[in-house]
Amino acid sequence: MLEVSERGHAMPMSPYRRLTPFADAAKQRGVHVHHLNIGQPDIETPPVMLAAVQQANIRVLEYSPSAGYPSYRRTLATYYQRVGIPVEADDILVTTGGSEAIFFALMSCLNPGDELIVPEPFYGAYTAFAVATDVRIVPVTSHLSTGFMLPPLADFERCITPRTKALLLCTPNNPTGYVYSRAEMEQLKDLCLRHNLYLLSDEAYREFCYDRDFVSALHLSGADDHIVVLDTISKRYSACGARIGAFVTKNKALQQAAFKFAQMRVSPPGLAQVLAEAASELPDTYFDHTKAEYLTRRDLMVRRLQAMPGVECPVPGGAFYVMAQLPIDDCDTFCRWLLESFSHQHQTVMLTPASGFYATPGLGKQETRMAYVLNCEALDAALNCLEHALAEYPGRTVAQRPTCPTAGVAS
Amino acid sequence: MLEVSERGHAMPMSPYRRLTPFADAAKQRGVHVHHLNIGQPDIETPPVMLAAVQQANIRVLEYSPSAGYPSYRRTLATYYQRVGIPVEADDILVTTGGSEAIFFALMSCLNPGDELIVPEPFYGAYTAFAVATDVRIVPVTSHLSTGFMLPPLADFERCITPRTKALLLCTPNNPTGYVYSRAEMEQLKDLCLRHNLYLLSDEAYREFCYDRDFVSALHLSGADDHIVVLDTISKRYSACGARIGAFVTKNKALQQAAFKFAQMRVSPPGLAQVLAEAASELPDTYFDHTKAEYLTRRDLMVRRLQAMPGVECPVPGGAFYVMAQLPIDDCDTFCRWLLESFSHQHQTVMLTPASGFYATPGLGKQETRMAYVLNCEALDAALNCLEHALAEYPGRTVAQRPTCPTAGVAS
Repeated sequence: MLEVSERGHAMPMSPYRRLTPFADAAKQRGVHVHHLNIGQPDIETPPVMLAAVQQANIRVLEYSPSAGYPSYRRTLATYYQRVGIPVEADDILVTTGGSEAIFFALMSCLNPGDELIVPEPFYGAYTAFAVATDVRIVPVTSHLSTGFMLPPLADFERCITPRTKALLLCTPNNPTGYVYSRAEMEQLKDLCLRHNLYLLSDEAYREFCYDRDFVSALHLSGADDHIVVLDTISKRYSACGARIGAFVTKNKALQQAAFKFAQMRVSPPGLAQVLAEAASELPDTYFDHTKAEYLTRRDLMVRRLQAMPGVECPVPGGAFYVMAQLPIDDCDTFCRWLLESFSHQHQTVMLTPASGFYATPGLGKQETRMAYVLNCEALDAALNCLEHALAEYPGRTVAQRPTCPTAGVAS
Repeated sequence: MLEVSERGHAMPMSPYRRLTPFADAAKQRGVHVHHLNIGQPDIETPPVMLAAVQQANIRVLEYSPSAGYPSYRRTLATYYQRVGIPVEADDILVTTGGSEAIFFALMSCLNPGDELIVPEPFYGAYTAFAVATDVRIVPVTSHLSTGFMLPPLADFERCITPRTKALLLCTPNNPTGYVYSRAEMEQLKDLCLRHNLYLLSDEAYREFCYDRDFVSALHLSGADDHIVVLDTISKRYSACGARIGAFVTKNKALQQAAFKFAQMRVSPPGLAQVLAEAASELPDTYFDHTKAEYLTRRDLMVRRLQAMPGVECPVPGGAFYVMAQLPIDDCDTFCRWLLESFSHQHQTVMLTPASGFYATPGLGKQETRMAYVLNCEALDAALNCLEHALAEYPGRTVAQRPTCPTAGVAS
């Protein structure tokens, strides 16, 4: 018998898309599904960026250099310098989305079987990248009750073994929305210096901080060789489909290793680099509007959630996600029930169960991640659905288990 | 000390681009460098495809589905059906270039340490993908003297161990230009059936067969579960920079596994899928012109090479590469010498030494791969350079070693 590889079996399904067949079935039944489950913003991609592609005079769509077009790398260096990250074009490798930056980082920093410390809950695809690169994720749990702030340093120290090679953080955080403070970032840097670890910093949501200043890993001093920033234009310019990211480090040996992985796939997408480069034409005030819009939505969502009986929800300082604890038995069951068995005024809501964001089994069972990527009116309607659903749901407290319909028939 | 990972060290540099610094230096000196070293066609990307991107009405450049846009997958299925490959949209996963299709195939079919049989010489990046996926390439040598036809089946049989999981072929072949006959393809299929191996078939150059009909692995019958076709639009439509490829299999379990790797990186590039889909608007005669142009170039190149004393060069049946054996001691040294120490009428030529296409150490030392991706006039000028260079080169026979300049000073 022909077998799929063990790693093919071990690869997890995306926690965002696992419920898609149930959402499709709901739509078939005529139910409108509000999508709070994925981080696909509804903000328009800047027309000046799309126009750059339309106006590009391309005769042959050639491979770009493996590290990306030199002009785009220079533009990107200027962007970083403007946000206080002192890097040059040579420190930047253009990647196919932030995803590829994660892949290059794990491949270049860790050997098979090495350990990667990650505060949980964390972006679900990290698990997939760890399986693909044969790296072991060691989670350090952060808690909803503390707003998902950095866990005590002692929790990290306890996890370090001779196989620990790197620490991966995400700030502003997906899925929690937490923004690490400068003090927290400094603590992590010191830990990495002390134990000789790489500090991989996923900063996909850099522009979206609402309550405190953003601190990049490359804002920290004295640890340049340890730091890799993993970046993407997906959220920054609402250009998820472009697939343009960046692997940024001042560690030359690491940059050279990552460059060899970049050569393997020849080049990042060409048209999308033209699009990305045109971001330099945006006015300095570009993010003001987007941030203001997200902030209004965040406040609406948090206010509505906190008013629902039994719901706990810290105020996230950044990104466009809210993690909430619901008064239910099991969020996987609940999210499926929302799509299969519930509707309110012919509408329902699709959420992401948080279990896929935890590496520790059993954690996050009552938690969900909601993305505020819809306009306020749609968000309000989605939250109406959730409110009604929580009142109706058979498994709405831990004590009350949902009745199993087939068991009912049998008894 | 912070260390780059072992696999980061083990990754090979691209054999195509290793000589780039010497080419850059030659250009600095005012020498025109004819690039026969990379497979970047000069044929224009069809304007109708570029226009589709320019005319696309995009407000938000969203993630596409992980498997690609359904409309593009349907269009692609129609294309395959037209070339006699009976697949449906569901059998196709849109990938970020042919590169990603190779990656998904190795990840989904083989475990770390498993063996992959590949006829050598082979596309240099296979080595990089093998390192990245921790797969062992077992080469079976084909020979310039036989035009790089399929080696005897016994040579393959001898290599098979309990760790052998797949055979990877490329037809029309990069770097040899050889096109496997139906009989050869059937032999490989039978081998894979007999030993329960996957048959991974890289068909990037499908459209460019000059002397015999192309046979796809999916033209073969009775082995659907064994076969994966790895494809790309890079060469077909001269759209290398788009980064759109395909992973094609009727094996549902394998498709499902590959899909999870596709979810990991969220989606393939969006703008480029719009470009690729518009290929359906090309007239049926589109490839006639391109093929005729490549055929003229091939004939010119082969004729010129075969007229040079001591050069051996089989007639390649497809793709746009010629492999030639030169009357020189070492092609790596020669190619560097061409860029560093030679010019003819202020011009020189950049070739790819074939050593990077062989896994067996020491093979291909006198061979080079040349891509006929320049127009006939430029090709002729490039071959003039080569002809003069071969007459001048100090190491032009195996017996005559090049003089070492510093040794000369010391003696």
